[in-house]
Amino acid sequence: MSSAQGTSQPFTDLLRLKPGPVDLTAIETNAAPGYDGDKKSGKADLWAIGEELFDLQQRLFAGKDDGQRSVLLVLQGMDTSGKGGTLKHTVGLVDPQGVKITSFKAPTKEELAHDFLWRIRKGVPGPGMLGVFDRSHYEDVLIVRVRELAPHDEIERRYAAINDFEQELVDSGVTLVKCMLHISPDEQKARLLDRLADPTKHWKYNPGDVDERERWGQYRAAYEIALERNNTEHAPWHVIPADKKWYRNLAIGSLLLETLRRLDPQWPTADFDVEAEKKRLTDEAPIS
Amino acid sequence: MSSAQGTSQPFTDLLRLKPGPVDLTAIETNAAPGYDGDKKSGKADLWAIGEELFDLQQRLFAGKDDGQRSVLLVLQGMDTSGKGGTLKHTVGLVDPQGVKITSFKAPTKEELAHDFLWRIRKGVPGPGMLGVFDRSHYEDVLIVRVRELAPHDEIERRYAAINDFEQELVDSGVTLVKCMLHISPDEQKARLLDRLADPTKHWKYNPGDVDERERWGQYRAAYEIALERNNTEHAPWHVIPADKKWYRNLAIGSLLLETLRRLDPQWPTADFDVEAEKKRLTDEAPIS
Repeated sequence: MSSAQGTSQPFTDLLRLKPGPVDLTAIETNAAPGYDGDKKSGKADLWAIGEELFDLQQRLFAGKDDGQRSVLLVLQGMDTSGKGGTLKHTVGLVDPQGVKITSFKAPTKEELAHDFLWRIRKGVPGPGMLGVFDRSHYEDVLIVRVRELAPHDEIERRYAAINDFEQELVDSGVTLVKCMLHISPDEQKARLLDRLADPTKHWKYNPGDVDERERWGQYRAAYEIALERNNTEHAPWHVIPADKKWYRNLAIGSLLLETLRRLDPQWPTADFDVEAEKKRLTDEAPIS
Repeated sequence: MSSAQGTSQPFTDLLRLKPGPVDLTAIETNAAPGYDGDKKSGKADLWAIGEELFDLQQRLFAGKDDGQRSVLLVLQGMDTSGKGGTLKHTVGLVDPQGVKITSFKAPTKEELAHDFLWRIRKGVPGPGMLGVFDRSHYEDVLIVRVRELAPHDEIERRYAAINDFEQELVDSGVTLVKCMLHISPDEQKARLLDRLADPTKHWKYNPGDVDERERWGQYRAAYEIALERNNTEHAPWHVIPADKKWYRNLAIGSLLLETLRRLDPQWPTADFDVEAEKKRLTDEAPIS
């Protein structure tokens, strides 16, 4: 796969949202930009980048005590768009020790009593970690906007607050990879019906999801506003065509890979005398 | 592999520590109890149980909103005994969404200002989760005992406090799988020298580990006391021969599998009208 070779970064280049107004209806949900293979080769190519992804993440993690940067993958999308599946198939490729996943549900009373970013800050990955947000602070300008769960002025204030927050993250060593999983309403319907048809998937089905689905146009508008206003140089958005699950996984796995390649984490150098330590071990008194 | 078939639980039966005084020198570190295959077949057999392990963990996770139990894997062992490797090779087989890993380092000043279990409680997995402790509250009766980091009376008090705490966990829905990774001093020496020989492993090497190594006998004694006093019916200890990395992984993967089989988590039943939801979706007005 050309995308996994050398230092080219086709997925980043193709999926990064251009600055300016956003029209999600103009972005195909069923496409596979930058990839001309099929489902079978897409799965094989994702598997094939696993080794490099693992190695780069190990290098990242190795620097955790040396002020290493961290990576934060932000996953947003309508219900069934595949946030959980992405976690399993891409984040599942790396060492679980270096991963910190935070799933944001409806805020608790305690969380609501604080600024909207209060609970988000707790999920920010420490040095060397790969953090993942399954939903995020963007809910506070998405469902909150559609459902009018906060005053209009407060919601309007949040876009700039998010840009400031993300700048603060970047300055403190966090590299963001923001991904909007873009599916069509037809694909969502098929996935919801699939969940209903299979008793082992009933737990994933929530009738409330259909209530939100009925406001699809409002959600799209809310996404377009956030995608435009929070598409900064320091923390750009990527829109991932997500009707094809295998492409979604390959694209996000590749974005992570390209991000880690850019960071180019190096194995830390020893802060101790390697030869002296070898000698200490080989010369030691018997231990039992 | 016989161990992965049917409802037998050979690893649990063989590795669970019998009640009474513990003599670690009498437990082989290089053995492979319950398994007569070699390294190659051991790796293949671990891989082979991956699918059932994944399925059972999905069932566990599916019940997270229905008061499901959780599983807490506690990993203890001397440096290089393979806590990180176990995480990668066994916990890495399941869905990262349902995993919560907590690594306990030397306590911070804030942590030291609280009871020793204060920081531990924050790592306890919620319903449906597979939690992992990479080191644990046992450090508070191991290094703390060897290094005399707390008054003798306080340390003596902790064994009963741990039993009470673990009983409280079990009563609140947490099933513990406590594993002591048992390696020989020679194997540790080989692994430390291996880390020194490879610059990509220098970050894993800490000269302080050798200081602890020099107190091997004291650590063994401290382990034996904890293994005896905290080997309860509700939270038994398992001693895992860990000189063979592949056996360690196979054994712990199998212990997790056998634990999940005993819990036998069932897919939650729908708390909504499945047919009504199907109808609602198929009859809906066009959405775009």
